[in-house]
Amino acid sequence: MQRINVALGDRSYDIIICNECIKDTGNHLSEIGLRGKVGIVTNPVVNRYFGRRIRESLKGAGLKPFTITIPNGERYKTLKTVTNIYDKLVSLKFERGSSLIALGGGVIGDITGFAAATYLRGIPYIQVPTTLLAQVDSSVGGKTAVDHRKGKNLIGAFYQPQRVLIDIDTLHTLPRREFIAGMAEVVKYGVIADEVFFNYLEENLNDILSQKTDSLLHIIKRSCEIKAHIVEKDERDVSGRRAILNFGHTFGHAIETITGYKKFKHGEAVAIGMVMAARLAVQLNLCSHHAYKRIKDLLNRIGLPTELPKLNFSETMKIMQHDKKVSEEKIKFILPKRIGEVISFSDLVHADLKRVIEDM
Amino acid sequence: MQRINVALGDRSYDIIICNECIKDTGNHLSEIGLRGKVGIVTNPVVNRYFGRRIRESLKGAGLKPFTITIPNGERYKTLKTVTNIYDKLVSLKFERGSSLIALGGGVIGDITGFAAATYLRGIPYIQVPTTLLAQVDSSVGGKTAVDHRKGKNLIGAFYQPQRVLIDIDTLHTLPRREFIAGMAEVVKYGVIADEVFFNYLEENLNDILSQKTDSLLHIIKRSCEIKAHIVEKDERDVSGRRAILNFGHTFGHAIETITGYKKFKHGEAVAIGMVMAARLAVQLNLCSHHAYKRIKDLLNRIGLPTELPKLNFSETMKIMQHDKKVSEEKIKFILPKRIGEVISFSDLVHADLKRVIEDM
Repeated sequence: MQRINVALGDRSYDIIICNECIKDTGNHLSEIGLRGKVGIVTNPVVNRYFGRRIRESLKGAGLKPFTITIPNGERYKTLKTVTNIYDKLVSLKFERGSSLIALGGGVIGDITGFAAATYLRGIPYIQVPTTLLAQVDSSVGGKTAVDHRKGKNLIGAFYQPQRVLIDIDTLHTLPRREFIAGMAEVVKYGVIADEVFFNYLEENLNDILSQKTDSLLHIIKRSCEIKAHIVEKDERDVSGRRAILNFGHTFGHAIETITGYKKFKHGEAVAIGMVMAARLAVQLNLCSHHAYKRIKDLLNRIGLPTELPKLNFSETMKIMQHDKKVSEEKIKFILPKRIGEVISFSDLVHADLKRVIEDM
Repeated sequence: MQRINVALGDRSYDIIICNECIKDTGNHLSEIGLRGKVGIVTNPVVNRYFGRRIRESLKGAGLKPFTITIPNGERYKTLKTVTNIYDKLVSLKFERGSSLIALGGGVIGDITGFAAATYLRGIPYIQVPTTLLAQVDSSVGGKTAVDHRKGKNLIGAFYQPQRVLIDIDTLHTLPRREFIAGMAEVVKYGVIADEVFFNYLEENLNDILSQKTDSLLHIIKRSCEIKAHIVEKDERDVSGRRAILNFGHTFGHAIETITGYKKFKHGEAVAIGMVMAARLAVQLNLCSHHAYKRIKDLLNRIGLPTELPKLNFSETMKIMQHDKKVSEEKIKFILPKRIGEVISFSDLVHADLKRVIEDM
């Protein structure tokens, strides 16, 4: 069992990374002082795999579990779904001491976190992420949100969980494509913050892709450490420090929006976005062609897409302008300087962007 | 001009109390570093009185004002209204550096604060309260919320404004009944925290009710000071300190719910609730009959209701159980020990409550 503390003053919490430990969920809730009613927010698929184990663990620790299922899929990441959760919590008489568990992937985590942030002005919640993407990214850092029809994550709150419980055993039930998509965020951490970790990924890719326990524990731990470190320095994404986590995401979000969230999984769009950002960096003489090549090759070896679908330039620009990371109406891009270091860049002219989109 | 600082670490802000100062709104925004787009959330009535003055003040300070009107009334304090605000902000391309102004009463303040808390995971907002109730209570302390059909304020967030600008001149346009209703919260501060202030209210009631400038400045300043002091010690309403602000409110909310938010204004329901709480305190030998009498007499002199409409006991109980202040399914009441001091009391048996409801 690995334990990483996210130091955020009175909002600090631990990330636990372990194997076959979902059965200890009840003890984790007790350890942080939660009791009474607990709402397990999940979808029917995840519920079938892990619901019963968690419920029994909670009962064993003297808690009162209730299962709240929501439909599976990003297109249900809406205020409407959150409203249904509110209705359920009200009818179950959830109180300010009651809590929620987000059991599932990133969508479940974002929705549950937002419901916890806004029900009775905030009740405690913990994350039990069951996808690689959620384990290394969305479950850590307190960003909660739902989508607006005009863009992703436009409605949300910063609201930290009280614990993140990562059971790597859950990854064995994950469809292969989902696992691969999650690897995009793992690669991202290497590029933005840690060349040694990037080397590790290059050198141990077979073990990782065959999901050897030690490799999984290592890549998830290192990813969470890097994310925790960044979040600690810029919890609310204001100083610009946290923005480096958006490497690959400004292009990625635009690709997802244009393709209607259907063609690509989030991690796949981010993989293409990282290649685009790296290519843009080369074009601007910020980064060597060699570094760009290493990023693209690693993503290719993992099995992630690295080629852009045909995009309409002006539509892409419009969507990126709407992206919530815009500031003073200039788009900010996170671009690599080398493997292990990125910079924020906003002095772009349209021609640069047009060229990178056309070149891909 | 009076200035009260609410000390909440990096969420600290000033409350400004002044006369004919709404025309300085732009300067206040500049002073706290806001620029660019500003959404003035208001209703058509308030907009007619003050909208133009604020817009011109903002333009004069180099800001870009947009007016977002929402329908007037508590029944529009819903997620639906907030959704309409989100849509407007998205279409106006509001960014993370853009801000909102809540221009109006408590409903406007609660809705605007919640929209600010949840749009792009939080944008800055300031409060410009134009009712006495909002000036002495809801605009200070960062409680934002909308109602759920099953109860008031069930959906919300703690999210502090960056400034509260109270122009007492706005009270001259306030309907008399609204002003009187707001006085209930002013009386509350005397009962829960300051006997000297309660004496002042008794002795200067004529000046207050005829809205003499000095009296208004004093009662608003003292009310805000007391509220700020309590909020500083218990920002998120967890230690129990902030709960004393709910004096009169547990009964008050039940009365509002049972009467469908139609018969009474919030302050009127709170006035009746305070009399009920005081009567309950006498019944439990916590408080003298004399103190109860002083509270009831002052409320009567102000012109507030102090008699209970016919209530169904079991329905009242059910509604109070749903109230968000419930904790471990026991109802907590704030009861006076004397003028200037209250305690939290939860060891009530149904018979006590039944008696106080029947006696009223």
